[in-house]
Amino acid sequence: MPSLHLPHPPADSRKKARALLIELQDTICAGLESIDGEGKFIEETWERPEGGGGRSRVMKEGKVFEQGGVNFSEVHGEELPPSIIKQRPEAKGHKWFATGTSMVLHPRNPYIPTVHLNYRYFEAGPVWWFGGGADLTPYYPYLSDTRHFHKVLKDACDSINPKFHKVFKPWCDEYFFLKHRNESRGVGGIFFDYQDGSGKLYKGQNPNGAASINSQAIGEHKLSWEELFSLAQACGEAFLPSYLPIIEKRQNKLFTEKERNFQLYRRGRYVEFNLVWDRGTIFGLQTNGRTESILMSLPPLARWEYGFKASLNSRERLLTDLFTKPQDWFTDDSLEEQCRPFSAID
Amino acid sequence: MPSLHLPHPPADSRKKARALLIELQDTICAGLESIDGEGKFIEETWERPEGGGGRSRVMKEGKVFEQGGVNFSEVHGEELPPSIIKQRPEAKGHKWFATGTSMVLHPRNPYIPTVHLNYRYFEAGPVWWFGGGADLTPYYPYLSDTRHFHKVLKDACDSINPKFHKVFKPWCDEYFFLKHRNESRGVGGIFFDYQDGSGKLYKGQNPNGAASINSQAIGEHKLSWEELFSLAQACGEAFLPSYLPIIEKRQNKLFTEKERNFQLYRRGRYVEFNLVWDRGTIFGLQTNGRTESILMSLPPLARWEYGFKASLNSRERLLTDLFTKPQDWFTDDSLEEQCRPFSAID
Repeated sequence: MPSLHLPHPPADSRKKARALLIELQDTICAGLESIDGEGKFIEETWERPEGGGGRSRVMKEGKVFEQGGVNFSEVHGEELPPSIIKQRPEAKGHKWFATGTSMVLHPRNPYIPTVHLNYRYFEAGPVWWFGGGADLTPYYPYLSDTRHFHKVLKDACDSINPKFHKVFKPWCDEYFFLKHRNESRGVGGIFFDYQDGSGKLYKGQNPNGAASINSQAIGEHKLSWEELFSLAQACGEAFLPSYLPIIEKRQNKLFTEKERNFQLYRRGRYVEFNLVWDRGTIFGLQTNGRTESILMSLPPLARWEYGFKASLNSRERLLTDLFTKPQDWFTDDSLEEQCRPFSAID
Repeated sequence: MPSLHLPHPPADSRKKARALLIELQDTICAGLESIDGEGKFIEETWERPEGGGGRSRVMKEGKVFEQGGVNFSEVHGEELPPSIIKQRPEAKGHKWFATGTSMVLHPRNPYIPTVHLNYRYFEAGPVWWFGGGADLTPYYPYLSDTRHFHKVLKDACDSINPKFHKVFKPWCDEYFFLKHRNESRGVGGIFFDYQDGSGKLYKGQNPNGAASINSQAIGEHKLSWEELFSLAQACGEAFLPSYLPIIEKRQNKLFTEKERNFQLYRRGRYVEFNLVWDRGTIFGLQTNGRTESILMSLPPLARWEYGFKASLNSRERLLTDLFTKPQDWFTDDSLEEQCRPFSAID
């Protein structure tokens, strides 16, 4: 096994990561309560018999949010599961530590997208890494909302290292993909995993859960622990500015039962992704994780309909024809032309 | 590899199995349309690019059935997937043939249980086998309904071989189990797989999808192809008499939003089982199966609610305290006592 030469984390790395992620939960919850105006997060703390615990916060039946959860956890154990050891063989035989904050929001209004965020930090013996990202899942999409969301995340990545975004954007498209539907979950965002400053920028994985994570040299410059910490911090802090303006713009838009039904139908896809393809969810469920916290991501109501097909030249069809396929949101000029007939630009 | 000494299937085995299963689809659909009174099945035939095809029938918004599907398929291919080859190594390198009928019904009234049925027949080189079963998932359960369902299936099994039922009943409890909830999907029924007349009665499998299928000697008497065909036939024919009387008894029972909400919440469990644990579903989705047919099993509407707990001494609690745990439905006298306070006996 080749020995790793990772930059050393600071002596108080766990404390720092924990503080970052718990503060992220606080900031996000405060921002969401403020924009919702009515809904409040209910907090529940829990302990994990095998070590560690968490702080779950759930909002039910808010004005904007039909249901949403923001979960912080800090857990540790004897040995990481085989699926992770396969990616980081140096962790074998070592105790591990992991802390993370994850969030899924299901707004009531079909013109406001569902959104997901997760940032996490791992240590196990000689190895450590940061992972995470955020992605947007619109029902009735607008090009300007999608561009805004991507732009704020890109700026956050760029503020740390200009090489990040062109790796993390396609990685997100690759990860949040429903192979059985040949669709992306939504319009993407950013996703990264196993970032450890080893001088490689890991850049993607087989969505089937197969072993390989590719990497590319990031250049002479190895990334320090502090730079990757700052990456997680910058992306985490970018969440509210990436999402709240979309809510503000769409929250008063009237909708009918037709739009509601389509939203519920598309929420079924969210369930399908999370239960069939999301490695974190499946792993948690199959290994005695805290079920209620893991499944906090599922929507309050979802619908399935055999053989549903959106009619040609409809806004519903625009979603799967254009928005749930990976796109170059900033540079592709044809997007506007395609959105114009559906008033889906701005 | 030990050579197998399976009873020979008849020369027209595929034709016979096909005829049995397509007739089963016809009979079931006719019976269901008749009891529904309003809903009609819409038929769709499809071809599988790799070989074979199917006949899907779906009823939407019937009077009794909110959504239901009965699907017949007959498919073939070059080599079975590794998960099946592991169970039947003699099939390796051989072309395969499979035919099956599967059904899931989601009634509107929360007092009528959801029900699932699947019978199938495989051939691959020197090996062949029958598999299948039927299981019931009530929302507001009645002991008499559960006993009736089990009794009709037991009688069908007994009519072929009195050894079957005490193997197939616990196998069903074992298979339809949500490990992450520590709950059975419903009250069970019967389930069997890999029945090939080799003189062993296969009797169960690791619900985690691990490799082992245990078996026990069925005695001197090997089962013939014809006996196992008759098993599938008897169980298939038992479906309408096992289920229709339950509909007749419950269809006019009034319900309120409370019962409806609990039904939708429990339907979430059905989604969780099918997408997280059901090997057939997962295998189909991950290997380019016909998604719409595979996911026909999902409910028209389902609900998730973080941290929901049914109150003590409620009918909702009776479901998970008693009915979604494996029980000896016929012989356990304490069941009546436990159901009485909730008027859940008859």
